[in-house]
Amino acid sequence: MSQPLINKLVVVGIGLIGGSLAAGLRQVGACAEVIGIARKAETCDEAVARGVVDRAYTSLADVANELGKGDIIFISVPTLSVAAVLHEIKAFISPEVIITDGASVKGSVQRAAEQVFGQVPAQFVLGHPIAGSEKSGVTAANPNLYKDHRVILTPFPTTNSLALDLVTAMWQAVGAEVLTMSVEEHDEVLGATSHLPHVIAYSLVDTLAQDIHNPNIFRYAAGGFRDFTRIASSDPVMWHDIMRANKTAILQSMDLFIDNLSRLRSGIENEDSDYLLKVFSRAKEARDEFTLMLAKRQEMIQKE
Amino acid sequence: MSQPLINKLVVVGIGLIGGSLAAGLRQVGACAEVIGIARKAETCDEAVARGVVDRAYTSLADVANELGKGDIIFISVPTLSVAAVLHEIKAFISPEVIITDGASVKGSVQRAAEQVFGQVPAQFVLGHPIAGSEKSGVTAANPNLYKDHRVILTPFPTTNSLALDLVTAMWQAVGAEVLTMSVEEHDEVLGATSHLPHVIAYSLVDTLAQDIHNPNIFRYAAGGFRDFTRIASSDPVMWHDIMRANKTAILQSMDLFIDNLSRLRSGIENEDSDYLLKVFSRAKEARDEFTLMLAKRQEMIQKE
Repeated sequence: MSQPLINKLVVVGIGLIGGSLAAGLRQVGACAEVIGIARKAETCDEAVARGVVDRAYTSLADVANELGKGDIIFISVPTLSVAAVLHEIKAFISPEVIITDGASVKGSVQRAAEQVFGQVPAQFVLGHPIAGSEKSGVTAANPNLYKDHRVILTPFPTTNSLALDLVTAMWQAVGAEVLTMSVEEHDEVLGATSHLPHVIAYSLVDTLAQDIHNPNIFRYAAGGFRDFTRIASSDPVMWHDIMRANKTAILQSMDLFIDNLSRLRSGIENEDSDYLLKVFSRAKEARDEFTLMLAKRQEMIQKE
Repeated sequence: MSQPLINKLVVVGIGLIGGSLAAGLRQVGACAEVIGIARKAETCDEAVARGVVDRAYTSLADVANELGKGDIIFISVPTLSVAAVLHEIKAFISPEVIITDGASVKGSVQRAAEQVFGQVPAQFVLGHPIAGSEKSGVTAANPNLYKDHRVILTPFPTTNSLALDLVTAMWQAVGAEVLTMSVEEHDEVLGATSHLPHVIAYSLVDTLAQDIHNPNIFRYAAGGFRDFTRIASSDPVMWHDIMRANKTAILQSMDLFIDNLSRLRSGIENEDSDYLLKVFSRAKEARDEFTLMLAKRQEMIQKE
């Protein structure tokens, strides 16, 4: 039997993101062993019972003595909890163990690492899988979650290139496509294309539930609305953390959106047909181009 | 062979909405004959070639002399074009022919009918099928479009009850569930649950395409965004008409949404964790209740 890609993988936080990576890597036999860390003993038991991990513990300290070369720690806790995990890691880590994470905001993880270690350690590869679900927790772990999805890694000039290569290979092993960009670009792009749409979806559902005083409002809501609000049922704590961690980029995107929406509001109020048709037509064009691009990407992936 | 439900059905505007009703009724044999009316001769030819209608003409005047008891005219043109069609109908209509429509806003159709006829004729049943697609035109006609979807009829005390019964039976024949409510309630509910989400989706896509100056912005947009913006690629003219026809209700909903979003913006700016968690949690609850309700409805439909 050939050597597995990774020796021990330690997944800190066995929810949707961490559990799905663990289950996916186990499924393709990419790790000698997959170890889970969760705060609650029940989560540990559930993760083992479901075959998401080989074994599980309630504290990172339980595995501190057995980690070395070829091992990876994957941090998949809500964004603002990454700092606390880095503190625990600092207590025992050797430079041979690779650290990586899956938090949705990379600037806040960079700042947390700088605070804990003085600078981002060369062995720490910051990353973000662009995949999710309205489900959360270990019961939502899905070995195929990352198949044909993108993972963005945000390495620094000081990042160890072997660490970067192994983390890249880890994501490719579960079927993901790996890209790299800077921390700043990541947070700006995700702020606009993911965090802004989530803020809007949450606010829309909240407006209908709280502000529109018609008890039938959800009763008649149609299919399009269902698609639209699916994303408003993601984990509230995760999204709370993202709002705080990527505050600057999100506020910028929100301001651009609120300006745009206010212009559209004026167009409706003033019955400005030219303006309305222009906005609706160019949104349709942009959306059609986006769909075409996705279709091409899908075709490329299938050809590979 | 038993008598079909409807004698002649005349569909004015053979696009997604009208073409799908025509194709659906032909499929179940509910009409003796289905006749299409479209401005362009090519659309007429295409509709006949695709089996969407039995025959087609470029003007309503072409069928004026052959309509009588048991016949229905279904108006499925963009909302603001309904008035012009009612003018043409007035020139030849007898009180025995039933008129109905599928426009997304009912207040503007009511006003158009009052202007053309002095009052809404007893034979005119205003209606709105809650179904759509990002596709449009006769090539998008789908006989199953209305299956398990809702149709809202907005009858008046003066509406002929036999006309109401036949239009109800017509929609049930293509698998739809028929509800009734007032014109005012329809426009308020649809303004909040359909028109507002469309305005938001158009504005979000436009913001990303126009206001965020990052050429990679669509390249990295993830799956959630795809769901979110699917509805921003509906027909621009149809949505332009809706914005003008339901202006008052849409502006009211937009104002409530913009207020809610501005409060959320302050919560993010002030790092008000309690507020953010409250909004995200109750949006998730509202959304989860909505999903449960849809599931129950689906179960009921399947039991029938």
